[in-house]
Amino acid sequence: MQKGALVYEGKAKQLFTTDQLDVLYVQYKNSATAFNGEKKEEIDGKARLNNQITAVLFEKLHAKGIPSHFIEQLSETEQLVKKVDIIPLEVVVRNIAAGSLAKRLGFEEGTPLKRPLVEFYYKDDALGDPLLTDAHIALLELVTDSEKQTLEHLGREINTALLSIFDEIGVTLVDFKVEFGRTADGEILLADEISPDTCRLWDKETKQKLDKDVFRRNLGNLTDGYSIILSRLGGKSQ
Amino acid sequence: MQKGALVYEGKAKQLFTTDQLDVLYVQYKNSATAFNGEKKEEIDGKARLNNQITAVLFEKLHAKGIPSHFIEQLSETEQLVKKVDIIPLEVVVRNIAAGSLAKRLGFEEGTPLKRPLVEFYYKDDALGDPLLTDAHIALLELVTDSEKQTLEHLGREINTALLSIFDEIGVTLVDFKVEFGRTADGEILLADEISPDTCRLWDKETKQKLDKDVFRRNLGNLTDGYSIILSRLGGKSQ
Ligand SMILES: Nc1ncnc2c1ncn2[C@@H]1O[C@H](COP(=O)(O)OP(=O)(O)OP(=O)(O)O)[C@@H](O)[C@H]1O
Ligand SMILES: Nc1ncnc2c1ncn2[C@@H]1O[C@H](COP(=O)(O)OP(=O)(O)OP(=O)(O)O)[C@@H](O)[C@H]1O
Ligand SMILES: [Mg+2]
Ligand SMILES: [Mg+2]
Repeated sequence: MQKGALVYEGKAKQLFTTDQLDVLYVQYKNSATAFNGEKKEEIDGKARLNNQITAVLFEKLHAKGIPSHFIEQLSETEQLVKKVDIIPLEVVVRNIAAGSLAKRLGFEEGTPLKRPLVEFYYKDDALGDPLLTDAHIALLELVTDSEKQTLEHLGREINTALLSIFDEIGVTLVDFKVEFGRTADGEILLADEISPDTCRLWDKETKQKLDKDVFRRNLGNLTDGYSIILSRLGGKSQ
Repeated sequence: MQKGALVYEGKAKQLFTTDQLDVLYVQYKNSATAFNGEKKEEIDGKARLNNQITAVLFEKLHAKGIPSHFIEQLSETEQLVKKVDIIPLEVVVRNIAAGSLAKRLGFEEGTPLKRPLVEFYYKDDALGDPLLTDAHIALLELVTDSEKQTLEHLGREINTALLSIFDEIGVTLVDFKVEFGRTADGEILLADEISPDTCRLWDKETKQKLDKDVFRRNLGNLTDGYSIILSRLGGKSQ
């Protein structure tokens, strides 16, 4: 598969065309960013770790019946994916209060939620990715009611699958963000990435943070935790 | 009716007991506050205007079949109300994008919404009255699902009634905030106040702002607009 022209450069990945119209080449980057890009750093090894963790997780999710855009890993930092039209809603699923939810509702970080909570954020950097209510989603006409229900349902299914994947490796899945897209024939597919950049992951025993909060909160070396996740998931940590 | 002990002092009103357990004495204040109390000023005449406007509006709503806590106006700045347990949800109904909605979703202020939008905010000053989704409301267990539906329904009915009340006096109702409470026997009643402090009101012809945005945005003399509202509503503007 030929790597063609750069079609999009985000904060964490570059997308390239391939010789197939419906396939993209994803190149992970070493950049770490937080607070809508305000905090930024280059971190050696991050591209490799997130590319491999995402590949392993999308394969494990596939095995549990959750299809995604993932086709195959190409190299340490590259993977092939099906091209989709990204739906501009970030779907956040939470099992334990942390981050913006803890702040917003006044929960102590670490408080287990009675039931997984699904939130939708408007994927719009200029607006700072604001939280949306169902009424806002309807007003913005970003998805139909039935698509919105599909997103919520898929979010919950992915949560169930990830909870068990992480539980098996001694990790608590606190929360995560996923993105979905529409394929040319209208199917809704899990897309983007699932990595310690997009999940909160705590070691079950030590409570050590193994995710991007280490970067957001200056808690030490980011890739230590990411390497633990990859090696426990059975990936080649090199 | 005796004015008893001060039971609560808010930013805009004081509540006193009366010789009846289920009745409160409300004393409106001249304080104007915005941005969760950050901006503050004493404004002569505001207490009188908001007390009278609220009295007139609650009477007009009653005539249109919407009961409230309002019993009677006692003086220029005082009214009697039924005591309720305030539900800690601020119900916001919007007809036109303005204020925080325009900012949040990137709408130009003044954009008419296809259909009135109902939002719920957590009435919690320490948290800055955050916007809540349905899932947050369920998580916080502030109201049952059926109570939440009642609040939304009442919000829409009040909107329909207020739209026609303001339309008759040449005023566009852009949006408003209401509070509800539970009476001792579990009935949900419209409470608090409805005034230019809690509504966005624009003159239909001139588009002049006749509400608290004049204070929030330093657009001139606040009570000019409030006096116009009261006199057009048929109140004694004194
Ligand atoms: N299968 C796919 N097809 C098309 N676009 C995709 C696919 N998977 C992910 N994307 C998009 O590619 C971009 C990935 O880049 P990256 O994660 O670096 O973006 P970002 O910095 O998070 O910024 P943003 O997501 O706001 O554009 C995202 O916009 C993502 O939505
Ligand atoms: N019928 C009622 N019974 C009991 N409390 C009421 C009733 N109507 C309004 N209240 C409450 O009385 C207070 C009115 O005071 P005010 O509007 O000054 O409060 P505030 O500064 O807006 O602050 P906050 O609403 O956050 O307490 C509010 O807390 C309001 O919810
Ligand atoms: Mg991204
Ligand atoms: Mg108030």
